[in-house]
Amino acid sequence: MTDETSTDAPDAGTLVLKVGYRGAGFSGFAAQEGQRTVAGELVRALETLLRRPVEIACAGRTDAGVSAVAQHVSLPVTRGEWEGLTARRLLWSLTALTPPDISVMGAWRAAPGFSARFDALGRRYRYRIKCGSQPVLLADHVWWLRDGLDVGAMDRAARALVGEHDFRSFCKKSSAEGRRTFRCLTGCAVSRQVEAGEELVCVDVAANAFLHNMVRIVVGTLVEVGAGRRPESWVADVLAACDREAAGPTAPPEGLTFVEVQYPPSALVTW
Amino acid sequence: MTDETSTDAPDAGTLVLKVGYRGAGFSGFAAQEGQRTVAGELVRALETLLRRPVEIACAGRTDAGVSAVAQHVSLPVTRGEWEGLTARRLLWSLTALTPPDISVMGAWRAAPGFSARFDALGRRYRYRIKCGSQPVLLADHVWWLRDGLDVGAMDRAARALVGEHDFRSFCKKSSAEGRRTFRCLTGCAVSRQVEAGEELVCVDVAANAFLHNMVRIVVGTLVEVGAGRRPESWVADVLAACDREAAGPTAPPEGLTFVEVQYPPSALVTW
Repeated sequence: MTDETSTDAPDAGTLVLKVGYRGAGFSGFAAQEGQRTVAGELVRALETLLRRPVEIACAGRTDAGVSAVAQHVSLPVTRGEWEGLTARRLLWSLTALTPPDISVMGAWRAAPGFSARFDALGRRYRYRIKCGSQPVLLADHVWWLRDGLDVGAMDRAARALVGEHDFRSFCKKSSAEGRRTFRCLTGCAVSRQVEAGEELVCVDVAANAFLHNMVRIVVGTLVEVGAGRRPESWVADVLAACDREAAGPTAPPEGLTFVEVQYPPSALVTW
Repeated sequence: MTDETSTDAPDAGTLVLKVGYRGAGFSGFAAQEGQRTVAGELVRALETLLRRPVEIACAGRTDAGVSAVAQHVSLPVTRGEWEGLTARRLLWSLTALTPPDISVMGAWRAAPGFSARFDALGRRYRYRIKCGSQPVLLADHVWWLRDGLDVGAMDRAARALVGEHDFRSFCKKSSAEGRRTFRCLTGCAVSRQVEAGEELVCVDVAANAFLHNMVRIVVGTLVEVGAGRRPESWVADVLAACDREAAGPTAPPEGLTFVEVQYPPSALVTW
């Protein structure tokens, strides 16, 4: 038997999973000893299924309390493993092996060496704010503010952030030290939306990649403008300062959801 | 002091509240001794606020587990009580006095004798179904079905129900005995919707009024068609049978939300 026909050739291809989760029950995505994490639960399920140690890459390491409807993870799979798997069987097995607050939403094949992290071209997050009366159906997934917000002012102020900039002001201080903090924000829009019967203020932010706490600091900063505590022009000043102290507070994690990842058009193959 | 200027003249007007709630924590809307109910919690809050016994009317008595984003309740209020209340103070007091799974969303004045139940012209419910992978953000508010549904077939079949009919087949048996079961269904549509990042099948049902379990039996019946277990024409046969045994199963309560009540245009006054 030659190497080419061996059924346990490593990395015969990459398995890519689209994963959703409700953030409240997790200490974030990334595995941490002694903590309940999304990666921890996924790795345990995959190791049970594949009967071997597994390491996964992910499109975005979400903070504790942050939800996702389109996280993507990837792992190398051997030829022998592919032969035993159909997408349908895989999805149902992983659904059975993961807890109810994790949803395995889709499965694809990609080329050997593909990484859900390094091959992602862009990410998008939605931050949901409920103003006024207590939220109802989406109560666990919004930031509840008693007073109203000037959505127009927030949307205009947000435009200062679009483009390639040093986002050091919008990065958790300890994570920025000694690191490059330039990112390219491709969109940052604030709008009123009705979702599940709830009148919400939504902040939609898209970028090639994000810094630690970046969306939450952007939202905390825009809310300062929306609440009338700062002028619209202040957001450009915050950006220029390159200093976390210049920005607004970090908005709470429960309002944030990871909603989209872009990969090169033909990278993910249905099977 | 004459009766006209007395500050405790009963029923100087009617207070109307719009109320939302997450159904999972309640044994339904209607007060029941020893059970946690929405009415029980609302009455307790109103009695604390008004310092007297209170009775409320409601637009729709939802079943255990059913949610609402537009329930309406009404209660007579004396002139003295009106004088001490502003809508804003009332909303914040009731928000503080009700549990987190109840939201007091709005407050209006109506004429003496107005009833949230008897003055309602129409009600609308949305039933949410998630097909395929496990639901994420709206997990507590959908019926999760592993297999797909033929939404077009469900929507066509639903048309047989629109209009004034005897809906005895779609009423809990014990509630139908000896009662008139004619209702006027003004709309019944099945469509795909994306809400909070979730691809859903939504059944929207509007009527002048509803029978006990009516929407849930309509949904359970339409799902038989959508799953391919019955032909589209079967729904008209079920309606004609006037027999609960002819219809499909009662869909689970968690997918159902009470989403709208219509009152005569000038009945509710902002103050």
